[in-house]
Amino acid sequence: MSTPLPWHQPITAPSDSHRQAALQRQTQLTKPAGSLGQLEALAVTLASLQATDQPRAERISMAVFAADHGVCEEGISAFPQAVTGQMIANFVTGGAAISVMARQLNADLEIINLGTAIPPPLQDGVIDEQVAAGTANLARQPAMTDVQLHAALTAGDRAAQRAADRQADLFIGGDMGIGNTTSASALACALLDETPTILTGPGTGLDPSGVAHKVSIIEQALTRHRQAFAEKSHEPLAVLGSLGGFEIAALAGAFIGCAVRGIPVLVDGFIVTAAALAASQLRPELRDWLLFAHQSQEPGHQRLLQALNADPLLGLSLRLGEGSGAAVAVPLLRSACALHNQMATFADANVSNQNE
Amino acid sequence: MSTPLPWHQPITAPSDSHRQAALQRQTQLTKPAGSLGQLEALAVTLASLQATDQPRAERISMAVFAADHGVCEEGISAFPQAVTGQMIANFVTGGAAISVMARQLNADLEIINLGTAIPPPLQDGVIDEQVAAGTANLARQPAMTDVQLHAALTAGDRAAQRAADRQADLFIGGDMGIGNTTSASALACALLDETPTILTGPGTGLDPSGVAHKVSIIEQALTRHRQAFAEKSHEPLAVLGSLGGFEIAALAGAFIGCAVRGIPVLVDGFIVTAAALAASQLRPELRDWLLFAHQSQEPGHQRLLQALNADPLLGLSLRLGEGSGAAVAVPLLRSACALHNQMATFADANVSNQNE
Repeated sequence: MSTPLPWHQPITAPSDSHRQAALQRQTQLTKPAGSLGQLEALAVTLASLQATDQPRAERISMAVFAADHGVCEEGISAFPQAVTGQMIANFVTGGAAISVMARQLNADLEIINLGTAIPPPLQDGVIDEQVAAGTANLARQPAMTDVQLHAALTAGDRAAQRAADRQADLFIGGDMGIGNTTSASALACALLDETPTILTGPGTGLDPSGVAHKVSIIEQALTRHRQAFAEKSHEPLAVLGSLGGFEIAALAGAFIGCAVRGIPVLVDGFIVTAAALAASQLRPELRDWLLFAHQSQEPGHQRLLQALNADPLLGLSLRLGEGSGAAVAVPLLRSACALHNQMATFADANVSNQNE
Repeated sequence: MSTPLPWHQPITAPSDSHRQAALQRQTQLTKPAGSLGQLEALAVTLASLQATDQPRAERISMAVFAADHGVCEEGISAFPQAVTGQMIANFVTGGAAISVMARQLNADLEIINLGTAIPPPLQDGVIDEQVAAGTANLARQPAMTDVQLHAALTAGDRAAQRAADRQADLFIGGDMGIGNTTSASALACALLDETPTILTGPGTGLDPSGVAHKVSIIEQALTRHRQAFAEKSHEPLAVLGSLGGFEIAALAGAFIGCAVRGIPVLVDGFIVTAAALAASQLRPELRDWLLFAHQSQEPGHQRLLQALNADPLLGLSLRLGEGSGAAVAVPLLRSACALHNQMATFADANVSNQNE
């Protein structure tokens, strides 16, 4: 892809001075040093990313990117393809898990349609970024053209701009797309030079023979596209175009767009982490801006987290997608910030420190 | 102890019909079956405990039980004993971790003084349930008399009654007491017939030689009291009286009192779980009413959770006490309830179910 991408702008490094100040403050709060574990590290990381003494996770911008996948014609999902559009309607009418969580967190929620095979039964409240009526079948041809890839990445970047316009403290991206664990697994295999058996799982609910079939489809896709990647020396954009989905490319574009604009990202489960991996290979400076919400029950997620050197906040055996696992983790960030900002110091509270 | 205890009343079994109805509802919500993992189980458990179709975790009653420990004269803590009273003041003035979390959660917070070695610098806002100015040194004599044990258990029961009066959806008990990991470890060793090395850790921050000394003090205590337990065939009340703390006994009393009154309990870390173990040995029906918030970084906690067959919600490497880990987990319960109560069903949302 020779056209310079709109988000190909500098990504600022986290503020080391705010990081040091936050670390120092944590040692002065009325608790044994280190006793708030990962919550201390979270507050320090947010302080350094937001370049502030008062880290916040109040204004949350959430965006669910939805699209269909041509590879569904290979029979790799437990759900029919019509569900992608039906769920878009469920998102905007408020009945989906992510809709409930958005209300629970008082967060903004955008539903962005990148292109479904069957039009959603409801369009009101949906942001129209349709690229095509789903990707092509990645097992037989590239999932998308360069023009389509650019359109999807740019749609994600626009979501990041809207989050910046809302002065979001944090961005969450979610995914919806029947068949998208097949795309994410294939993408991750190519990005990590990994074997499909490690990165392929039941998705929404395949049985073991269904998973075996899915592995064979992914092997077929990797064989078909390997030559093209070799020619481009594993260029992540080429991999994303050949094996990705529109929603996965949009997520990658949104994450880079958030980092460019100084907005930390809370990464959800398997699909979203695959997008984050592709984006991090495109722009390694992105990694600093990513927080990881949970370890999904989808078995390949562990390998993706390892590749990103990520230590997620939650277990809980979630595997729903939509950004729901990231939403569930938001209160941990809010608690970490409240504790960091509001706890008394030993000096303030006249409490004796360790062995004094 | 021959006097019948005030909370020696029946504990109702969770409602199986509400449990079945909640399980059924979970299969109808617009998500792959089981994809909300532990959050589904949480909602189902709360529905069965609250005997409702609409489980809730909105009204939270939190109580921090504080007391001092005579065993501090053996030099088993990294902090001076004055900190117990100083932290009582910090709780009521709002600077402690649990105070911040109570505001964050809009929860009731009671601070209950069971007896400190040095009076707290502030009494306003503290519930006075002082039994004595700390326990006796459990390494050399029983930590408390039967009368003191009864007083501490009863103080906990009164906290449960106040939670019931406030129509609490959930109760959280916290602990404060310099030296109380020594008491909790000794108690757990006696209750589980376990060796001190498994159940003893750094507490607020001992170094390895400090931990080794703590183990030797606990061994000394167990040797001293073993004969008395043998005579009473490991009667949990005798163990609690010989090795417990006033705040630990009060927690045990509060938990039984909550179960008797139909209030689910969210159990915090090492100290609180030791109290829950003692209470569960006293009243095995209590176990159904206990939810477990987190796996503490205090190494013995894992053994306690195993003894209670508990699968906690969070990791996060917390080890602060005060009930803070349970408070941090509350939003997970609220999310679980919101998702259970508010998500659309496949039928409501006209979404196709798996393979239909």
